[in-house]
Amino acid sequence: MRQLCKGNVAVIKGAILAGCRAYYGYPITPASEIAESAASLLQQVGGTFVQAESEIAAINMVYGAAAAGVRVMTGSSGPGLSLMQEGISYLAGSELPCVIVDVMRAGPGLGNIAPEQSDYFAMVKGGGHGNYRNLVLAPASVQEMAELTMLAFELADKYRNPAVVLCDGFVGQMVEPLELEDRESIVPEKPWAVKGTKETRKNLVTSIFLEADELEAHQRQMEAKYARAQREEPRYELYHADDAEVLLVGYGIVSRVLRSAVEKARREGLRVGLFRPITLWPYPAEALARAAERAERVLVVELSNGQMVEDVRLSLNGKVPVEFYGRVGGNVPSVEEVYARLTTRAVAAA
Amino acid sequence: MRQLCKGNVAVIKGAILAGCRAYYGYPITPASEIAESAASLLQQVGGTFVQAESEIAAINMVYGAAAAGVRVMTGSSGPGLSLMQEGISYLAGSELPCVIVDVMRAGPGLGNIAPEQSDYFAMVKGGGHGNYRNLVLAPASVQEMAELTMLAFELADKYRNPAVVLCDGFVGQMVEPLELEDRESIVPEKPWAVKGTKETRKNLVTSIFLEADELEAHQRQMEAKYARAQREEPRYELYHADDAEVLLVGYGIVSRVLRSAVEKARREGLRVGLFRPITLWPYPAEALARAAERAERVLVVELSNGQMVEDVRLSLNGKVPVEFYGRVGGNVPSVEEVYARLTTRAVAAA
Amino acid sequence: MRQLCKGNVAVIKGAILAGCRAYYGYPITPASEIAESAASLLQQVGGTFVQAESEIAAINMVYGAAAAGVRVMTGSSGPGLSLMQEGISYLAGSELPCVIVDVMRAGPGLGNIAPEQSDYFAMVKGGGHGNYRNLVLAPASVQEMAELTMLAFELADKYRNPAVVLCDGFVGQMVEPLELEDRESIVPEKPWAVKGTKETRKNLVTSIFLEADELEAHQRQMEAKYARAQREEPRYELYHADDAEVLLVGYGIVSRVLRSAVEKARREGLRVGLFRPITLWPYPAEALARAAERAERVLVVELSNGQMVEDVRLSLNGKVPVEFYGRVGGNVPSVEEVYARLTTRAVAAA
Amino acid sequence: MRQLCKGNVAVIKGAILAGCRAYYGYPITPASEIAESAASLLQQVGGTFVQAESEIAAINMVYGAAAAGVRVMTGSSGPGLSLMQEGISYLAGSELPCVIVDVMRAGPGLGNIAPEQSDYFAMVKGGGHGNYRNLVLAPASVQEMAELTMLAFELADKYRNPAVVLCDGFVGQMVEPLELEDRESIVPEKPWAVKGTKETRKNLVTSIFLEADELEAHQRQMEAKYARAQREEPRYELYHADDAEVLLVGYGIVSRVLRSAVEKARREGLRVGLFRPITLWPYPAEALARAAERAERVLVVELSNGQMVEDVRLSLNGKVPVEFYGRVGGNVPSVEEVYARLTTRAVAAA
Repeated sequence: MRQLCKGNVAVIKGAILAGCRAYYGYPITPASEIAESAASLLQQVGGTFVQAESEIAAINMVYGAAAAGVRVMTGSSGPGLSLMQEGISYLAGSELPCVIVDVMRAGPGLGNIAPEQSDYFAMVKGGGHGNYRNLVLAPASVQEMAELTMLAFELADKYRNPAVVLCDGFVGQMVEPLELEDRESIVPEKPWAVKGTKETRKNLVTSIFLEADELEAHQRQMEAKYARAQREEPRYELYHADDAEVLLVGYGIVSRVLRSAVEKARREGLRVGLFRPITLWPYPAEALARAAERAERVLVVELSNGQMVEDVRLSLNGKVPVEFYGRVGGNVPSVEEVYARLTTRAVAAA
Repeated sequence: MRQLCKGNVAVIKGAILAGCRAYYGYPITPASEIAESAASLLQQVGGTFVQAESEIAAINMVYGAAAAGVRVMTGSSGPGLSLMQEGISYLAGSELPCVIVDVMRAGPGLGNIAPEQSDYFAMVKGGGHGNYRNLVLAPASVQEMAELTMLAFELADKYRNPAVVLCDGFVGQMVEPLELEDRESIVPEKPWAVKGTKETRKNLVTSIFLEADELEAHQRQMEAKYARAQREEPRYELYHADDAEVLLVGYGIVSRVLRSAVEKARREGLRVGLFRPITLWPYPAEALARAAERAERVLVVELSNGQMVEDVRLSLNGKVPVEFYGRVGGNVPSVEEVYARLTTRAVAAA
Repeated sequence: MRQLCKGNVAVIKGAILAGCRAYYGYPITPASEIAESAASLLQQVGGTFVQAESEIAAINMVYGAAAAGVRVMTGSSGPGLSLMQEGISYLAGSELPCVIVDVMRAGPGLGNIAPEQSDYFAMVKGGGHGNYRNLVLAPASVQEMAELTMLAFELADKYRNPAVVLCDGFVGQMVEPLELEDRESIVPEKPWAVKGTKETRKNLVTSIFLEADELEAHQRQMEAKYARAQREEPRYELYHADDAEVLLVGYGIVSRVLRSAVEKARREGLRVGLFRPITLWPYPAEALARAAERAERVLVVELSNGQMVEDVRLSLNGKVPVEFYGRVGGNVPSVEEVYARLTTRAVAAA
Repeated sequence: MRQLCKGNVAVIKGAILAGCRAYYGYPITPASEIAESAASLLQQVGGTFVQAESEIAAINMVYGAAAAGVRVMTGSSGPGLSLMQEGISYLAGSELPCVIVDVMRAGPGLGNIAPEQSDYFAMVKGGGHGNYRNLVLAPASVQEMAELTMLAFELADKYRNPAVVLCDGFVGQMVEPLELEDRESIVPEKPWAVKGTKETRKNLVTSIFLEADELEAHQRQMEAKYARAQREEPRYELYHADDAEVLLVGYGIVSRVLRSAVEKARREGLRVGLFRPITLWPYPAEALARAAERAERVLVVELSNGQMVEDVRLSLNGKVPVEFYGRVGGNVPSVEEVYARLTTRAVAAA
């Protein structure tokens, strides 16, 4: 079925197709339509929606439902996600699958409600305490808001780990055609879950491991699954990348601006390409290194003061100079702005 | 005065010498003695101590006192710090100076109360939302627990930004000689603060900037001060680094193990040296690059699954192979373990 | 269907028959089985159960569901009910129907988990702020736990006001036969509710009335409905009351002890009777005054230091001497104890 | 020193003279000036002020300071007091002295910020769970706001029990001359307190008594002190009461209207008098009964739908007819209104 749909609403449409039946959250601009759609659409499929007392209550309800084996999610924006960091660390430490959507707004503190991409560090590097990783997916369209949410549920279950859909306020708020096929959602068996039944009484969902060796073994096992994710899950998109002398790198809404900049540059005869990471963790480091093999320069563009650029540098490890261009506060670079940047060799390339 | 002192207690002794007169916190192992000492020692100097309802209450009380121009601090361990991430982002966004001590415990979630260094990402990269940075200092002894806390107050005021003392549970719990000179603490004037007086009524402490251009300008100004910090504040320690073929890198308690490993290696005729970052942000990247110039290999050791190693790689940018060795869960590598690692060429160096 | 059932479970069985489909609560001994049964049984009928972050969250979720026109309830014991007092006042002030079960435990503060009847003042006089009344029903058996819960839902809707099922830990914990007929629950239309539909958009559920005259009018209208309840709803039970020279008054579990004391007294030839209030508010004052017309003494027995005795005195207004006998802390007076009290004329009758 | 002062400010001036050195609270209209004055004035005498995260945090901070033997207080209005009911019950159950000011606003729920006297039940009968009593004092002037607050601290310590200053928004907000003599405050020794010293380590402040007999004994001892308070503490004021045929009863701001009504009536040759309770608990029942001995009617006037009138009826126990006249929502009866009521024999006297 093809329909016009807002990004935030598409998230819930995808979630329901993926078999998600529980949403716990607290509204915040520019993510509120996610909670709103969850409230109305989950009810139609017999699901549960709770507007919790706070983001902390919400993420702990997610923990409870995840422990019970339910496909469950929450959504918020930066300040709310910050409040959830303890809970996210607990979910990861207890190896509980869930989906968390972060519709990024601008600025540290209260900032404003315009789009930014400045929660990259908080979500990709792990804003909570302890050694853990979020699986992080970065949609660039309404269609992907639905599809990557569906994928997030699959990956969360595959790795028993929180999966984050990290999008900027633009992608959350914009309206585009969405095409979803009705399908039977296959929710995997979760024999480790605690379902309130006799059989699952022996199950234990916890992140506490009092002995050092025991906790180290637990983390080694987590690391092993993260290593597997790094092998199997990197996703990305290339656009005119094979012969690019200048490789642009950007995700989310920025990638769409970059795509136009590539087109403009190609029209001008410049060999410019685009690398768009779709998974931010695991970061498609090898693919990026391959794509940049022939490049003379890499230009990373973000709606931030420079966060993903670190992962680009780590991926390229000094083989190609990496430049950065960022806009913040809700400002988004125009195609012209990027093009100008492209054609003026940066004075201080790293 | 020379005295035997526990690391966590030294934090408060340093804080009081630095003119800190307010502490808001919530106790958590292995950081509890910080709150305990604050409760008893601050009272003796006419200061304020509040055990708040929660970590969230505590960090927001810190915000209030900081806005009033008081030298103020809090302390906690991983889970507590995660709960404070929203507040920390607000403090940074509102450009409020304060000191935050994180005595790291082990594991994501509840884990256990043994030492780890796994909050590196959360504190150094910014666990909260938005573009901001914490100033981060990493003491390796009881003496430094006091001295770096004092420095943290100075840097916090210099940059109007949260400064974090990031230590592992070992340094927090161990007892060593501490020598502190009584001195007059010089707390700078803070004409921007809101002191409940007529004159300061016009002052506005906020992180909200509704217009995109306004918020961007605010962030550019923050960036400028961060750039200044990157020029002026990197601190580190070298040990047998000038001719080192193998350069060890570690901070906090790990650096002391590495120092012994250097000594053991030197006794065996191996040219091994140590680079110990004291500031984790700004990271002493240039100094590290210089120190590693002659090295054939760099070995980073952490009580984590590999976090600071990213900053080492970013600093060296591919010029020297970087290996990583980590222990977690409360396990600390022995000198022998590190030495063995040193002498066995890692199969998979990055 | 006749079954053996625990009092706390019977509450939920009654609630479901009454069409209740939402429960928000937080567990506390000796009320926990209510939440437990709600969690398992509501699910079977497509209802909603949320274990909230706190009692405060729970009562505000009740407010939300009640405002949406749903039959909704919560349950707790003394400390939890105290935390809900603000919310209860808001429910009453906004004229929202809901059912609240208080399974009373012993003591002020933490006390212990044994039964008492010491929340009488808090629930009957109105423990929250402002002029309002709870409808209060006092079951004395497992059968009544179900039936009075059903009645509570009807009264709550009839008067658009919170209705409280006030029982002691004994009645909550004991197991007795329960006979419930399956029946269609008739939930009345609630055209005033805010259902998230276009039609109900104009509805306003609020307790704020900024103008003094407006708020006075609102309260006059509440008073008028309370006056109606006082006329129509008093419920009570008499036992050998017509010729009683000594009239015993007690509710809940106490009434069962008193009933045995009446029987023992009658066997001894003493004209002793029992008046058991079933509604504690509206208090069956007239019926009590009539029942006490021939009595020479009235003896009130409570598991408290003397709370309902005030309503007995107000009902009799000096016409008959009123004595009080109370046990607390979890101690329940024996039949012999009451009998002894009966036959020894109290020295200090009021 | 004679000064013009607002009632809410006078509370803190009295508190400081009484040796209060700690205030924990959360602001709410019309009580906010209490917190404000506490913030500025306590600081000048080396005291502590904390604006807590919530009323629940505040009352539990009061519990902590009271357990440490400090003279401590909080203040709020109805909704805030409702949130504190659990904490108040814990304070009473643990026999901890503290002072709580309730500046009553209008209505159940949110209502409005105009004055009412509708928290009488909640504060006098005990809005929290369990058998306990608050000592309750009702000032009628700015001078009494200070003096009764001072008395409240004395009574709280004498009985180791919360003492409440219950006033309406009028008395809190009005400005009148205040005359306070500087005096040394004598804070009694509190050998039962837990002061963080070696000697007080053995002390135990708790409200938990797991055994029924133990909890009953605890409550009997509380009852004994309440009985003592009922003998020793009732306070009241008479005005033309000795020969009154009509006795007016009112407290707080209402008593000032009634006093004018008495004067008007006396001018008209009517024998009207006034009984003003100053302690609402213990209620001056005997004094009222004596004062009403010659009265033909008693008229109770409240800014409520009828709360204190119950205590008047209990005091008189049917000996004199008791009528009630109330205004709510922020409306205060005028002298004429009361006079009219006085001279028109109420149709439905109780």
